[in-house]
Amino acid sequence: MNCVFGIDIGGTEVKIGKFRDGELVLKTSIKTDTSDGGRRILTDVFQKIEELSLGEKITGIGIGVPGPVTKGVVNGAQNLGWGRVEAEALIRERYPEARVKVLNDANAAAIGEMAAGSASRYRDFVFVTLGTGIGGGIVIGGEVLEGTTGAGGEIGHMQVAYDKKRLCNCGNYDCFERYASATGLVITAKELAEGRKTRLHEVGFSAKTIFDLAKDGDEVAGEAVDMMVDTLAKALANIAAVLNPEAFIIGGGVSKAGDFLLDKLAKRFREVCFFAVRETEFALARLGNDAGIFGAAHVASK
Amino acid sequence: MNCVFGIDIGGTEVKIGKFRDGELVLKTSIKTDTSDGGRRILTDVFQKIEELSLGEKITGIGIGVPGPVTKGVVNGAQNLGWGRVEAEALIRERYPEARVKVLNDANAAAIGEMAAGSASRYRDFVFVTLGTGIGGGIVIGGEVLEGTTGAGGEIGHMQVAYDKKRLCNCGNYDCFERYASATGLVITAKELAEGRKTRLHEVGFSAKTIFDLAKDGDEVAGEAVDMMVDTLAKALANIAAVLNPEAFIIGGGVSKAGDFLLDKLAKRFREVCFFAVRETEFALARLGNDAGIFGAAHVASK
Repeated sequence: MNCVFGIDIGGTEVKIGKFRDGELVLKTSIKTDTSDGGRRILTDVFQKIEELSLGEKITGIGIGVPGPVTKGVVNGAQNLGWGRVEAEALIRERYPEARVKVLNDANAAAIGEMAAGSASRYRDFVFVTLGTGIGGGIVIGGEVLEGTTGAGGEIGHMQVAYDKKRLCNCGNYDCFERYASATGLVITAKELAEGRKTRLHEVGFSAKTIFDLAKDGDEVAGEAVDMMVDTLAKALANIAAVLNPEAFIIGGGVSKAGDFLLDKLAKRFREVCFFAVRETEFALARLGNDAGIFGAAHVASK
Repeated sequence: MNCVFGIDIGGTEVKIGKFRDGELVLKTSIKTDTSDGGRRILTDVFQKIEELSLGEKITGIGIGVPGPVTKGVVNGAQNLGWGRVEAEALIRERYPEARVKVLNDANAAAIGEMAAGSASRYRDFVFVTLGTGIGGGIVIGGEVLEGTTGAGGEIGHMQVAYDKKRLCNCGNYDCFERYASATGLVITAKELAEGRKTRLHEVGFSAKTIFDLAKDGDEVAGEAVDMMVDTLAKALANIAAVLNPEAFIIGGGVSKAGDFLLDKLAKRFREVCFFAVRETEFALARLGNDAGIFGAAHVASK
């Protein structure tokens, strides 16, 4: 029997999926050992997949990593302690007969949603992850757009305001992830809540509480969500004017707000976008945290 | 002998180039007959290329049209009087043995600059035309990005302001072409010139006079150019955060301002962009009005 491994290396754990014919047959995870410049991470992965292969032939290994990747070379992954790592070459050395692919984790997730999730109807779409920050994976003609330095799809660092109000980790002000991510939503809600009545003061400020209370009619929470949606819609409208994709797939922790978020977003997008892209479709991601292993396995299976 | 025709259909004239082995050997133009829904345009083109072929075998016909194109179908070209026209199929009917390609004119120009102009070193770049409006042609892996409805690269309709100050032809406010095109530059200069001393009041307001006076140290003209450059740099920074291209190629009438514009633009871009795309290169387009016929011939030559 043949098998393919789809792996998603994160800063705290490495998710590992074993696939046969595109089907996930086994899933596990190991701790990410970031000590010593993360030099044991790949060795730990090798050990685990050999254990899990049970003597079957490993025909493909796909790995998603949290950093820019171009042509199989990781150009720094801070959360892993990695600088430049020729990951694909290292893995090929160990598994010369397998199809080996290394790609950025957001891009892996995008491909995962195409292979087994809610983007299965699309070949040209933008996967948007709304979490602590905002990431993106751009798929054109079924292929990931890596970008010249691996920064393709770094959409969270587009700007939709220029007031120098919110400093971003990247050093710029007003990147749109400072407004439309979970973090951004909480900042906005706290600003709006000052001196006003809202149950957020009791339950605490998180993306979840804000969305829950917004659904419940809390005025401040509702305004915060609307401001987040407005910024997100404008950024996606700008992306659509560039790429004219078939669809936006919305994932990441904040997407748990579900149709409440999706409907508001699609509506606001249609109000602000260029008319020729008004039919762009919207869907929620479906694979959650498994998207990465599905995508990594997919690119290693072709 | 074999020949390929590269054709650029505009609202007033049709440019026709005859190529052998990628070399332009003959160039002419005919009037665009937009009467009667533009139904004679293609027939006129057929007649002209047969006359110009001089009995040589026509192995390829590429045509750029001023409107959205997807998979060889023109989805409306207002300046030609065209609605939906299955252009590629119509041309193939007449020339069954030729390689036939129909594409958007800005995309044809982008490919032209790659085939024979200043983008020859690149396979991933964005061609930006600064004219009455702002158009774009996105090339990824050497191929044009058409977009789902043919609106790929309609970058002029990205927004970098949301003050509802300037109405765009598309119906939206504050599309960035209302600020960074020739038209936008003139509007800005007129606003800035009100009640102030500037030689623009004598020589008149045009993109050319504004750039000429800015080079000459005229304060108002200089401010207008800086505002235009600022908006353009911000829009290109947003595009770069999405696509991470190798380069931006700047064309269109306004690009005649040359290195004076290009240097300011590259400098401002590096100030405002996401750090990971700071090395994006800038170059001036080189083929001017011939870019379209070169690009059309190129895609029909492969």
